[in-house]
Amino acid sequence: MGFEINISRMMGRLNELGKVGRNSEGRLIRLAGTNEDKAGKDLIKKWMQELNLKIKIDKIGNLFGIWSTEENKNEAPVFTGSHVDTVINAGIFDGALGIIGGLEVIQTMQENGVKPKRPIVLGVFTNEEGILYQPDMMGSLVYAGGMATEEALNIIGNNGKTLKEELKRTGYYGDEDPGFLKPDSFIELHIEQGPILEVEGYSVGAVENLQGISWQKVTCEGVANHAGTTPMYLRKDAGYAASLINVFLHNKADELKTSVATIGKIKFEPDAINVIPSKAEFTVDLRDPNSEKLKKFEAELDLYIEKLKEETNINIKKERLSRFEPVQFDENIVKLIEKAAAKREIKTRRMTSGAGQDAQMIARICPTAMIFVASKDGISHNPKEFSKEEDIENGANILLDVIIELANK
Amino acid sequence: MGFEINISRMMGRLNELGKVGRNSEGRLIRLAGTNEDKAGKDLIKKWMQELNLKIKIDKIGNLFGIWSTEENKNEAPVFTGSHVDTVINAGIFDGALGIIGGLEVIQTMQENGVKPKRPIVLGVFTNEEGILYQPDMMGSLVYAGGMATEEALNIIGNNGKTLKEELKRTGYYGDEDPGFLKPDSFIELHIEQGPILEVEGYSVGAVENLQGISWQKVTCEGVANHAGTTPMYLRKDAGYAASLINVFLHNKADELKTSVATIGKIKFEPDAINVIPSKAEFTVDLRDPNSEKLKKFEAELDLYIEKLKEETNINIKKERLSRFEPVQFDENIVKLIEKAAAKREIKTRRMTSGAGQDAQMIARICPTAMIFVASKDGISHNPKEFSKEEDIENGANILLDVIIELANK
Repeated sequence: MGFEINISRMMGRLNELGKVGRNSEGRLIRLAGTNEDKAGKDLIKKWMQELNLKIKIDKIGNLFGIWSTEENKNEAPVFTGSHVDTVINAGIFDGALGIIGGLEVIQTMQENGVKPKRPIVLGVFTNEEGILYQPDMMGSLVYAGGMATEEALNIIGNNGKTLKEELKRTGYYGDEDPGFLKPDSFIELHIEQGPILEVEGYSVGAVENLQGISWQKVTCEGVANHAGTTPMYLRKDAGYAASLINVFLHNKADELKTSVATIGKIKFEPDAINVIPSKAEFTVDLRDPNSEKLKKFEAELDLYIEKLKEETNINIKKERLSRFEPVQFDENIVKLIEKAAAKREIKTRRMTSGAGQDAQMIARICPTAMIFVASKDGISHNPKEFSKEEDIENGANILLDVIIELANK
Repeated sequence: MGFEINISRMMGRLNELGKVGRNSEGRLIRLAGTNEDKAGKDLIKKWMQELNLKIKIDKIGNLFGIWSTEENKNEAPVFTGSHVDTVINAGIFDGALGIIGGLEVIQTMQENGVKPKRPIVLGVFTNEEGILYQPDMMGSLVYAGGMATEEALNIIGNNGKTLKEELKRTGYYGDEDPGFLKPDSFIELHIEQGPILEVEGYSVGAVENLQGISWQKVTCEGVANHAGTTPMYLRKDAGYAASLINVFLHNKADELKTSVATIGKIKFEPDAINVIPSKAEFTVDLRDPNSEKLKKFEAELDLYIEKLKEETNINIKKERLSRFEPVQFDENIVKLIEKAAAKREIKTRRMTSGAGQDAQMIARICPTAMIFVASKDGISHNPKEFSKEEDIENGANILLDVIIELANK
């Protein structure tokens, strides 16, 4: 141990990949299945080949670079990786960091003559962002057996084309069945996409779990009446009911401590200055890393809505849009991250991933954890997305140490 | 006294006027200055002429039918009236009731040989609704000297044409200067457009004042961040600030008792399910019949916003959109309304007009009050607008009694 990744080589690759998929206005857009996504994968494939990795592509377009030897080829491999697809007008770090970090770790091990007892596999998972094809995290979901391959391939994108067509067209409809290689363990390096590490003064985070997500659409139905002629006690103001729910959610999230709650989208009808809203339609995004607490939050919202319906005579309907259970990562790998950080005197803290990740899907089939690198101002999915070179170096060195540990188990 | 208006004749005229200005889908639309508005005024003019009223039109398009005699022609006249212009997809009562009621009262007086000591003038005021041309209540405002005639005539409508062009085109740019006849007093019959009379079991209301109106646009500016990765204590949620303000407004309106407060229009940015709103833009409609209380409400809102800015670090800006002082109607006329109702054993209560009215403008130049007729479910500006024949009859009979009293003063 005690090896160091080459940060300038790593930053070089990050910046080079960041140039792939720019449109005429310079915006970075590599949507899964498109030519830009292909170009990103092609560049990674070229770099994999330069490191003599064996290339495998599966039927959902996941790209793997396998570093195995005669001695270790029968052992279950250690997986690392992330995604190269992006959102529209993206930054250069989200997803890319985990891929370039994996390449860098393998190259550093090779250069230092490390002979791991297990193969190392770098995976590039298809369609993590889910912009054209829903759901997101599709490649890792299918790889982990959470969705049938054909079902995913036949999904029609916002562009009117199936993912299968697009993968075939771009040469990423591979021979392998998703899940063809069973990992021993998985570790993913990723930017935080949130402000906690920066605000609290940490360079990297040891991600021990991933929040459960509950998305609902709530519709309050009151009565549209004249804002001047209707006294307060005769109103059924749907917008006011929405406001009360927003305030309730904030108070409850504060009370439950680990939970977060957001009303991000809202629409009034008729939406006129002098008319009491007859309808308020809004989304509720609840998250908690603890399954019981997330359920409790949902149940308390239900109770509050029932109470509000009685008190205000406003009809309130809910519709579930999406729900993911929280994911608990592997305690042993989290400890390895902490151990590596301590040895290198890097300030780290345990944390929860607030965003969805490929790692949450792979956690279904093997022990998994993640390393987070601090994000400037918590900004992500935006050209302003930025992480400091020093933090990236710290994250990649910890990734190196943990992969060596896992590979020699 | 003791005369009765002819309710079936009155309902006949209301329904006949209600057929004028229907579009191909049957929706009632008589916007000021349009051909439909002209058709409405033409019908009223025809009915005025049938009653031998002298027709006068002023430069802002106000139409007057004057019933005067050799004996009373030098006295200041009693005015009554309202408007024939409507909103888009209107009901048949708003405005029309006051015009048809005035015609009915004059005809009843004539038929019963009443010889008033003052002339009676029925006024049809231009553009009360303010749909194409802002501000609303324009004809009565100009008549009362609150806006220069040329200024109003040169306002360009949503149709790209000045009101002057349209009045000339439709034959309603008259010779008289607005304000040419100084009224002794003004009384307007109108539907309530609110639910109070119906809910509390009254047939008609004696309107003693008119709410002051304060319209503001409020913009909260927070920071857009990931709804999953940003802990509650690091958020600047503009939508949450908007919700707190809505709840504050409701509590304060309840506390101030006579006040009403409405957030009728709202918009979030970026308005996405998983992004904390960076911006919430909404309107605040505050009303109170008492000038001091309205000012107090505005001041308390200012204080609350200052407190919220400090506590949440969210930037909050306000912009004034419109403001009208409350109007106090004439106590003597209100008492005449109550006296007439009592004599006829009609259940009445004193009340406040929550909506703007021509009467509030005319109140600037002479003693003024209004009679309200109950509106079913408080609905107005809608084809469902409805008032019971019995309540209309009661309102018109009280109008008759009060006009006779005023005319014989």
